[in-house]
Amino acid sequence: MNTQLRLKQRPTGRASASDFDRTAEARSSPGPGEVLVKVLYLSIDPTNRVWMSDVPQYMPPVAIGDVMRGAGLGEVLESNAPGFASGDLVFGLVGWQEYALMRPGGPFPLTRLPRQTSLPPQAFLGVCGPSGVTAYYGIVDICAPKPGETVVVTGAAGSVGSVAGQLAKFQGARAVGIAGGPEKCRLLVEEFGFDAAVDYKSPEWRQQLKAAVPRGVDALFENVGGPIMHAVFGRMNVGGRVALCGLINAYNGDGTTQGDFGALLGRRLHVHGFNIIDYEKQWPAAMEKLVRWVLEGRLRSRDTVVHGLERAPEALNMLFDGRNVGKLVVRVAGEAQGEG
Amino acid sequence: MNTQLRLKQRPTGRASASDFDRTAEARSSPGPGEVLVKVLYLSIDPTNRVWMSDVPQYMPPVAIGDVMRGAGLGEVLESNAPGFASGDLVFGLVGWQEYALMRPGGPFPLTRLPRQTSLPPQAFLGVCGPSGVTAYYGIVDICAPKPGETVVVTGAAGSVGSVAGQLAKFQGARAVGIAGGPEKCRLLVEEFGFDAAVDYKSPEWRQQLKAAVPRGVDALFENVGGPIMHAVFGRMNVGGRVALCGLINAYNGDGTTQGDFGALLGRRLHVHGFNIIDYEKQWPAAMEKLVRWVLEGRLRSRDTVVHGLERAPEALNMLFDGRNVGKLVVRVAGEAQGEG
Repeated sequence: MNTQLRLKQRPTGRASASDFDRTAEARSSPGPGEVLVKVLYLSIDPTNRVWMSDVPQYMPPVAIGDVMRGAGLGEVLESNAPGFASGDLVFGLVGWQEYALMRPGGPFPLTRLPRQTSLPPQAFLGVCGPSGVTAYYGIVDICAPKPGETVVVTGAAGSVGSVAGQLAKFQGARAVGIAGGPEKCRLLVEEFGFDAAVDYKSPEWRQQLKAAVPRGVDALFENVGGPIMHAVFGRMNVGGRVALCGLINAYNGDGTTQGDFGALLGRRLHVHGFNIIDYEKQWPAAMEKLVRWVLEGRLRSRDTVVHGLERAPEALNMLFDGRNVGKLVVRVAGEAQGEG
Repeated sequence: MNTQLRLKQRPTGRASASDFDRTAEARSSPGPGEVLVKVLYLSIDPTNRVWMSDVPQYMPPVAIGDVMRGAGLGEVLESNAPGFASGDLVFGLVGWQEYALMRPGGPFPLTRLPRQTSLPPQAFLGVCGPSGVTAYYGIVDICAPKPGETVVVTGAAGSVGSVAGQLAKFQGARAVGIAGGPEKCRLLVEEFGFDAAVDYKSPEWRQQLKAAVPRGVDALFENVGGPIMHAVFGRMNVGGRVALCGLINAYNGDGTTQGDFGALLGRRLHVHGFNIIDYEKQWPAAMEKLVRWVLEGRLRSRDTVVHGLERAPEALNMLFDGRNVGKLVVRVAGEAQGEG
């Protein structure tokens, strides 16, 4: 049998387990051109919440009654598609279910992953997967810091932000991270090597930000939006770059996606909204570098693992509450036979 | 004597004559390194209103009691600065006064202009001056349309917008202008060669916009902000470019500079706030092209001339009411001796 979480109703505010029907159906065999994947880990991302809402977005929202859309990691059980064989470790939009019938192609296309004995498989959802590749293009292509410039990263303790800060350091920049709570701020500096951290839960966060960027801000890697983004805009230098990666502040419908275009004009900022689905062809080269840096011990990461498919909605709320550090995944099934 | 308009108080909402003191002082002679300029025409620009307010902006606001800052065109009467001689036609931040003591350098630096017998001198404030150069860089460098792409220009009947639309056409793009009222819309199509015009004063302006951009919007030259900008964002294609030139909707304090970053993210837009003060070195090359195109009859322009220094505050309000077509100037003094 294949257990699935299907979207029952569109959440208002936070998603909860009651927004989903837990269904079970017989496991199908793959048709022509299809691949049957056993789901090992689900990637829990802010975009999951966006996909539940009927708002303009980069992919259609999930239809009521459909299996919830989600990226994940799995093992190929049977393949009728060229390029995929039983036992392959794969990444793709597997959905919130135990088994997925996949057809290669589309956004987040089904991708074979290397069997890296030195890496936990979930690394390919985080630091060596979409999160790492997102951080790579945001920092290298958009923020493009020169040595000595200051890069601010919001959502800095998350899976994208923690990598973004480290990559900014690799470019010779000063990296300042904004995260919630003293424990995450300590981690930013001590574990991930940021030059300074700003705790947005502290009443003095604006003063902390001011003190952390004495020469202003040359580039911003933005994951959050709202008042934090606004405060950083107020410290940006003329001609600064903004890699607009996410607006997690707004995804539950209790925040806003509004921001100050007056700052963009007055400071002549360059803002690039981006999404890794536009960078598909550059993935392999970026992944190769990220894997190498992790294996060399240069690039660090943390994961937060939640156990059990049925806990996916709860895990998603952990993201919005900031209860994760680094990549947040749901472990659906025991590890693949060929692993480790 | 030198009659001057000095800022008496910061306007709330619209500026009015009562926000200024009209003063007269003896005309000074230029000190070492200075140039004495007789002001012929003032350039009336949205930025004049911004300079009156104590808000964050790209130059310091005008201090209370100071002569109002403003760009303009004048004739050199006496020069103690190298590169300038009596009789030269010059452009610079002359201020709202009859005579200006100028020191070369700074933003909008004092610049010698060619004596073009075939062009009225105010062309160097509009189509062949800052307005034209602004349009040139916004279209050529930022919007960078490919042939067949669609470019929308807001504030399209203004001095910058009317040139921007024509330059978009020169690049092979489809140009759609947004302006207020049927007369301006007619002018956009019949005089300036836009492919379509949208009248934002019409109750059906959203439907007009939809009909005017059947293949979506690839680039936006933005002068206005507010609901019009928001509506265009809603029709932009993935990866579209926005040349953010102005937010006239907000400059009187009765609008907002807020805009939707959700659209920037979802559609992966590239927004570049820009200001010609960053393009100083590229001015001469752009001006040369603009002058050539005007003399060839390819590039068209209109001017609105208001007579009398004391009417500068009133002229500024004409901008915000949309009562001008093309470049709005105030004629301060009779024409220069060497002109025509």
